[in-house]
Amino acid sequence: MRVSRLMLVTLRDDPAEAEIPSHKLLLRAGYIRRLAPGIYAYLPLMWRVLRKVSQVVREEMERTGALETLLPQLQPAELWQRSGRWAGYTDGEGIMFHLEDRQGRQLGLGPTHEEVITALAGDLLRSYRQLPVNLYQIQTKFRDEIRPRFGLMRGREFIMKDAYSFHADEDSLRETYAAMDGAYRRIFARCGLRAVAVEADSGAIGGSASQEFMVTAEAGEDLILTSPDGQYAANQERAVSLAPAATPLAGGALADGQGEPLSTPRQTSIEALSAAHGFLPCQVVKVLLLVARFEQGLEQPVLVSLRGDQQLNEVKLANALAARFGQTHGALLALAPLSEEGLIREGLQCLPFGFLGPQLDDRVLAGARQWQPTFLRFRDHTAASLETFVCGANSPDEHLVGATWAGLGQNPETLDLRSAQPGDRCHHDPAQTLEARRGIEVGHIFQLGRKYSTAMEARFATEAGGEEPFWMGCYGIGVSRLAQAAVEQHHDGNGICWPLAIAPYEVIVVPANVADDQQRNLAERLYDELGNAGVDVLLDDRPERAGVKFKDSELIGIPWRVVVGRGAADGRVELVERQGGGSEELAAGSLLEQLVPRIQAQRCGLSEG
Amino acid sequence: MRVSRLMLVTLRDDPAEAEIPSHKLLLRAGYIRRLAPGIYAYLPLMWRVLRKVSQVVREEMERTGALETLLPQLQPAELWQRSGRWAGYTDGEGIMFHLEDRQGRQLGLGPTHEEVITALAGDLLRSYRQLPVNLYQIQTKFRDEIRPRFGLMRGREFIMKDAYSFHADEDSLRETYAAMDGAYRRIFARCGLRAVAVEADSGAIGGSASQEFMVTAEAGEDLILTSPDGQYAANQERAVSLAPAATPLAGGALADGQGEPLSTPRQTSIEALSAAHGFLPCQVVKVLLLVARFEQGLEQPVLVSLRGDQQLNEVKLANALAARFGQTHGALLALAPLSEEGLIREGLQCLPFGFLGPQLDDRVLAGARQWQPTFLRFRDHTAASLETFVCGANSPDEHLVGATWAGLGQNPETLDLRSAQPGDRCHHDPAQTLEARRGIEVGHIFQLGRKYSTAMEARFATEAGGEEPFWMGCYGIGVSRLAQAAVEQHHDGNGICWPLAIAPYEVIVVPANVADDQQRNLAERLYDELGNAGVDVLLDDRPERAGVKFKDSELIGIPWRVVVGRGAADGRVELVERQGGGSEELAAGSLLEQLVPRIQAQRCGLSEG
Repeated sequence: MRVSRLMLVTLRDDPAEAEIPSHKLLLRAGYIRRLAPGIYAYLPLMWRVLRKVSQVVREEMERTGALETLLPQLQPAELWQRSGRWAGYTDGEGIMFHLEDRQGRQLGLGPTHEEVITALAGDLLRSYRQLPVNLYQIQTKFRDEIRPRFGLMRGREFIMKDAYSFHADEDSLRETYAAMDGAYRRIFARCGLRAVAVEADSGAIGGSASQEFMVTAEAGEDLILTSPDGQYAANQERAVSLAPAATPLAGGALADGQGEPLSTPRQTSIEALSAAHGFLPCQVVKVLLLVARFEQGLEQPVLVSLRGDQQLNEVKLANALAARFGQTHGALLALAPLSEEGLIREGLQCLPFGFLGPQLDDRVLAGARQWQPTFLRFRDHTAASLETFVCGANSPDEHLVGATWAGLGQNPETLDLRSAQPGDRCHHDPAQTLEARRGIEVGHIFQLGRKYSTAMEARFATEAGGEEPFWMGCYGIGVSRLAQAAVEQHHDGNGICWPLAIAPYEVIVVPANVADDQQRNLAERLYDELGNAGVDVLLDDRPERAGVKFKDSELIGIPWRVVVGRGAADGRVELVERQGGGSEELAAGSLLEQLVPRIQAQRCGLSEG
Repeated sequence: MRVSRLMLVTLRDDPAEAEIPSHKLLLRAGYIRRLAPGIYAYLPLMWRVLRKVSQVVREEMERTGALETLLPQLQPAELWQRSGRWAGYTDGEGIMFHLEDRQGRQLGLGPTHEEVITALAGDLLRSYRQLPVNLYQIQTKFRDEIRPRFGLMRGREFIMKDAYSFHADEDSLRETYAAMDGAYRRIFARCGLRAVAVEADSGAIGGSASQEFMVTAEAGEDLILTSPDGQYAANQERAVSLAPAATPLAGGALADGQGEPLSTPRQTSIEALSAAHGFLPCQVVKVLLLVARFEQGLEQPVLVSLRGDQQLNEVKLANALAARFGQTHGALLALAPLSEEGLIREGLQCLPFGFLGPQLDDRVLAGARQWQPTFLRFRDHTAASLETFVCGANSPDEHLVGATWAGLGQNPETLDLRSAQPGDRCHHDPAQTLEARRGIEVGHIFQLGRKYSTAMEARFATEAGGEEPFWMGCYGIGVSRLAQAAVEQHHDGNGICWPLAIAPYEVIVVPANVADDQQRNLAERLYDELGNAGVDVLLDDRPERAGVKFKDSELIGIPWRVVVGRGAADGRVELVERQGGGSEELAAGSLLEQLVPRIQAQRCGLSEG
């Protein structure tokens, strides 16, 4: 391809809309253009990258025996109602675009395809003899993100590879899950990405186990916690750890454990309270009030007790609530702090926020309009294990010192509800502490179990002659996000340094001066030869200054540049590698034999830095 | 690929939902499954066909220098408002799915991409030096069809190749339009389709010239009119012809041309009137009343006069109305018969339908609530050229005989508004008469001119130093529709006969009895050898009876079948060609040298029957 025909438009300055390097570079180098928030056009260079990434994904999926398919993007609401996710994806989190067709039927724009594929599998797969099957597709998906940002990283329209496997038993599911883990590692390696596998929360997809693949990068939206020995790695949403040990409260518990009142005027924060009285935050039990709203109408006040130095992990709390109420009350639509406005709306008295304790009486909810009249009470392990503590007295400007759970008459369910933090000790080896890295999620694999097949009555005939719901797995890769993550990991001050396996073109031939016949002719000849050798090659035939062309080739990130300059008279050219910038002069006649084998090696993605 | 791993599910009976052969066969052979009206899942076999069709399209587009891209499916309403098409595509014809996002912004689901690409071109293409450019994409499109049917033929979610070209002048546009015409002919030929190019109406896309490519098939929804010499071919929506000559009315015109009243009780149809009084339908002027509703509120009554033996072509009338009012009143949203209910709603007197004449007085509209108070009057050439005629008297049970246009005091604008019919004489050679064929539209190319670039202010700097809107063309192929059209043209009583170039697999190796070691081993060996030779090969390894496997292979339509049966003991196999059913016995050792060259020739699509 000739650069003059490539519709290449590069920008000198960073576009105002972009915050992170990869987003800036993709805009500046003419790879993408924004059409609306979170909605981008993939220009010809970008589309070549996406096709190369897709091809790597396809090859590795095929290698595991998966079958490619393409499922509809428009999905009938009834399917999602059968799985119980319609309300959660529309009214709840609201991430599914949805519309009414001209017949008044509700349709969603697929953010994922568990419902569609489960319905299809129930129709097509009738017998254990047909199992296992793993179906995948590479497709544009939609999510109505509240805050789309970072270009292709968090878009509202993006390309995914999603796969769904069906099994006769759990062992077979585990086997395919392991095969997908292997395929994913090969895919990321071939694309030149440094990616780590981490334990993950299964979120709205659900299921028993899941693992994310994170491309490590400063700009990553996810916090990953890892042990120095590499034995443990998890998304913070999911991570578990040993909290720092608490220092026992001086003076211990009072005999009755009900605590001694302490005047704490305006000391509504743990910090203020601790500073004023010489407590440590780890000696305080803090109380958070929230209200959980479920699909079928239930509004449940929740009281969570945490050790004062710990933070609530809302994902863990939401999972606990969904586990408790999902079957009976439908999807968890919202989980929000219990606010003063909420109390007023319910016709209730205001509460002494900042001075609350775990012993807060259910009577404060009596007469609520919508809310359940009793708290669902949880405490985190760290709070539960305090023998004696400081807590709010449930009246203004007053705390209790030396309280115990028994003394307060409280024994709420104890769960892991805290956010693991960098510096926490590891479960598998308390001598190690968790380290933090930022990551970009590019893949996520799930053991779904029988959640969808049971809900949607997708069954097969077993070998024993019975009927059972399928065991299922699902496996996603963010194809467009992966492409941008590659830029985030591979760029320098001059532009993008594409890993060769996913570069839009592998080589650019640059005649320094196209007005010079010798240079132009040699460049044309090398361009033809490289093309005939199966190399994806560009010829920068524009009548621009050499410096402009070099700058553009570095910005767009072509892995190899062949410069045909004054040396052309002696049949010599310069070969420059984008990553690292190493250059060498060589005879034009030996270019192919020197360059082609290196390109072939780099196509496997294994020699990538 | 082994058939046992292919998730192949064939049905014995025709599914109730399907009406035409290709739709029945794609369902029965396990290529597609319906998820909702007009919305289908492409199962693995279908997806392979679609990928092969796409690859042919891609190769031929690349050959012309077009650049592949991918544009968003979600499109902001503002872009469509700028081109003036939002109202027509949503409230009007209503074929664009649309929704509101969580920020309350209106988005449409792209049925086509003129708006998006024109906005992008205005941003990226600044100078004549960058022109011409032709950008294409292969993508799922959406249309909220009132009556989706025939499987992939008229779906609500379907795959299109659409291309858009940008030019500095009209000559350059014509050049690319001609290049696309050539590319389309090659694409259809390579896919094994018999397709004809016909003049077409440009419809909602607009522009000055357009041409459709029709796959001829009984089940086609379009009527094509062609001249026996092949010089003329057009979609009936667009076709022009010479109407049969009219027989002059006996007795001629009365002196004043106002016509003689004739009592015609209950003779409201042309047929009844003609039969009762010995007229010919071609001696009558019939009158049709319609109301045209435009985007900006105009509701215009229209009076159309036609010769009694002719039919109104509503597409031609709609084009005439859009040309007259589009600039000032926006898109034509609806064109419907003026009905009695309409008159009542407007507070008007009922009209003597069945007895109307061209001289109907505008006073019948006086005092209308929404409608304009005067008729827009058109007549077809066939009506205009009648020297004297019969027409309604505008009072019940009465017609006029021997009227003339002058005598009635009428001189409405004369246009081509009639539907050309099979049997009409051709314009280019009145000795020939038009013949009818049915066709499936698989491609449509348009010279758009400057309609979109002017509306959306997409301009470039000209060589002369000025600024002008681009000249544009657009070019579509229905990829999923093409695949089904291929089945419509290539099937027999036993199933599909795929043209090899787009068959999901090229060869199927069928061991007659997999329990026979010799047969199984030879089949496996041939399967491996064919695969290594680059052939897309299936091995039917299922423990089914040979007859079942033969039936399935014919139903799914694999072009070549290699049967490994009893002859395996002597190293002999049977080679069967699906299309035609010819078979030959040959030595297994010579299979490759005999079969591979034939497959290679068929891949070009040129040896297709």
